Amino acid sequence: MLAKSQVKYIQSLGQKKFRDQEGAFVVEGPKMVRELLAAPNLELVTLVGVASFREAGIPFTEVKDSEFLRISSLSTPNQVLAVFRKPVFEEPRFGDGVNLVLDGIQDPGNLGTIVRIADWFGIRRVVCTPDSADVFNPKATQSTMGSVSRVQVLYEDPHALMQRHPDLPVYTAVLEGKSIYGQPAVGKGWIVIGNESKGIRGELLQRATHPVTIPRIGQAESLNAAVATGIILSHLLGH
Amino acid sequence: MLAKSQVKYIQSLGQKKFRDQEGAFVVEGPKMVRELLAAPNLELVTLVGVASFREAGIPFTEVKDSEFLRISSLSTPNQVLAVFRKPVFEEPRFGDGVNLVLDGIQDPGNLGTIVRIADWFGIRRVVCTPDSADVFNPKATQSTMGSVSRVQVLYEDPHALMQRHPDLPVYTAVLEGKSIYGQPAVGKGWIVIGNESKGIRGELLQRATHPVTIPRIGQAESLNAAVATGIILSHLLGH
Repeated sequence: MLAKSQVKYIQSLGQKKFRDQEGAFVVEGPKMVRELLAAPNLELVTLVGVASFREAGIPFTEVKDSEFLRISSLSTPNQVLAVFRKPVFEEPRFGDGVNLVLDGIQDPGNLGTIVRIADWFGIRRVVCTPDSADVFNPKATQSTMGSVSRVQVLYEDPHALMQRHPDLPVYTAVLEGKSIYGQPAVGKGWIVIGNESKGIRGELLQRATHPVTIPRIGQAESLNAAVATGIILSHLLGH
Repeated sequence: MLAKSQVKYIQSLGQKKFRDQEGAFVVEGPKMVRELLAAPNLELVTLVGVASFREAGIPFTEVKDSEFLRISSLSTPNQVLAVFRKPVFEEPRFGDGVNLVLDGIQDPGNLGTIVRIADWFGIRRVVCTPDSADVFNPKATQSTMGSVSRVQVLYEDPHALMQRHPDLPVYTAVLEGKSIYGQPAVGKGWIVIGNESKGIRGELLQRATHPVTIPRIGQAESLNAAVATGIILSHLLGH
C-alpha cells in the first residue's frame, strides 16, 4: 500500500519539470529494474511491485494490481517500478573518444533507442541540443534498455562545445555527403545526427568537416533517425 | 458526413480479421496518403478528411474534427485518412535478388520500420513467418512511410521456401556468427532476422550457410531488431 503522497510523487515524474526538480526518474519491468539496481552510478529512491514480483534479497513495497496500474506509465504494466536518482557521471572530456550529437531529436523512443545504439558501439557521451526529447521521459528511458546508466546524456549547445574543441573532426549525417562505405575508422570527434524531419541546423552544418551519407539503393524516401544512427556508427566505429 | 456503416467499416479495419476479409487497409496523414495515391499498384476505396485538408484535384468526404477523431487510430489525428485495397504484386521469384525473412517480429512499429529499411536497400520481398505482426496493422503501415506499396510482404513458411531453393545462401543474424564487417556483397539469397527476444527459431538456424553478427564494442546487451536489420543490410548490400 502506498501513501497518497507517494502515488502523487511517482505520477509527477511523468513530467520533465518534476523530474528536473527532483533529480529522479522512473523505470519499469523486472529486467530493466534489475539491470539498473546493479548500476554503480545510480541510487534507488523507491521500489514498488505487485505480488508476482519476487527477487531474492531485494525489498520492495508491495501493492495491489489496481494500485500498480495507477502509477505505471506502460500500457501493459510489468510487475515492478523503480524510482532512481539521475545517474552521476564524471566531468565529460569531449576531446577523448567520440561524442554523438543529437540535433533536436523529438521522439522519446527514437532518443532512447539511439542511446542504446551509442552504448553498443562504445560511445560514452551523447550531447543533445536543449530542444531535444528528455532521455528521462519514461518512454525514452525504457527504450535505452538500461544504457541510460552507462551513457552520459548532456543537454548543451553543441556548437559552443565544438568551438572549444576546434581540432576535432565533425561528421554530419546529411543527404549529400560522402558515402559512409569505406570511410576510415573514427577515433575521436563529433558525429551529428539531425532532427527526424528537418535534419541538422545550419549552424552545425557549417562546422562539418566530414559530411557523410548512407547511399540509397531502393526507393524509400528516408530512414528512421535511430536506424540511420545505427548504420552510420557501424560504418564509422565498427571494425 | 459519414454514414454509420462507413464509420463502422473504417473502424473495423483496425482488426486483422476484417482487413483480411475486406482485403483493405487504412493509412493516415497528408504525406502518406499522397504517396500511396500515386502508387500504381494501389486502388483507393475511400478518402475522408477534415476541412483543413485541401489537395487540388482529389475529391474526399469532408467530416468535422469530432467525427474524424472517431475514425482515426492516431493519438494525434492528421487531416486525412484513406482506405486502400491491399497492393497487388507480381508472383514472387525468390531466386532473383535478396529476400528478407522476418522470424516472428512482434512489434508492428518494428515491422513497418524494417519494411522501410528493406525498401531503402532495394529489397523487393519480405517473407514473414505467419506468427509475425501484420504489415497492414495501422501502426506498421504508418511506420513503412509508404514502402508498403513497393515492398511485397508475404506471410509464408520461410523454411518451406528455402527447401524449394536449396542453392540460395542463407544469412542469419545471430549472436555468434562471422563479423558483418568486410563481408562480400550479397546478390541473392535469404537474410533472416529473428524475433525481438527469442531470436531465430532452430529450424531456420539449421539452414544457415552464413551466420553473421554485429560485433559489440560497448556494453548494451542487444540492439533493437529494426536497427540491427539496418546495420546488417547496409553491410551486406551497401556499396
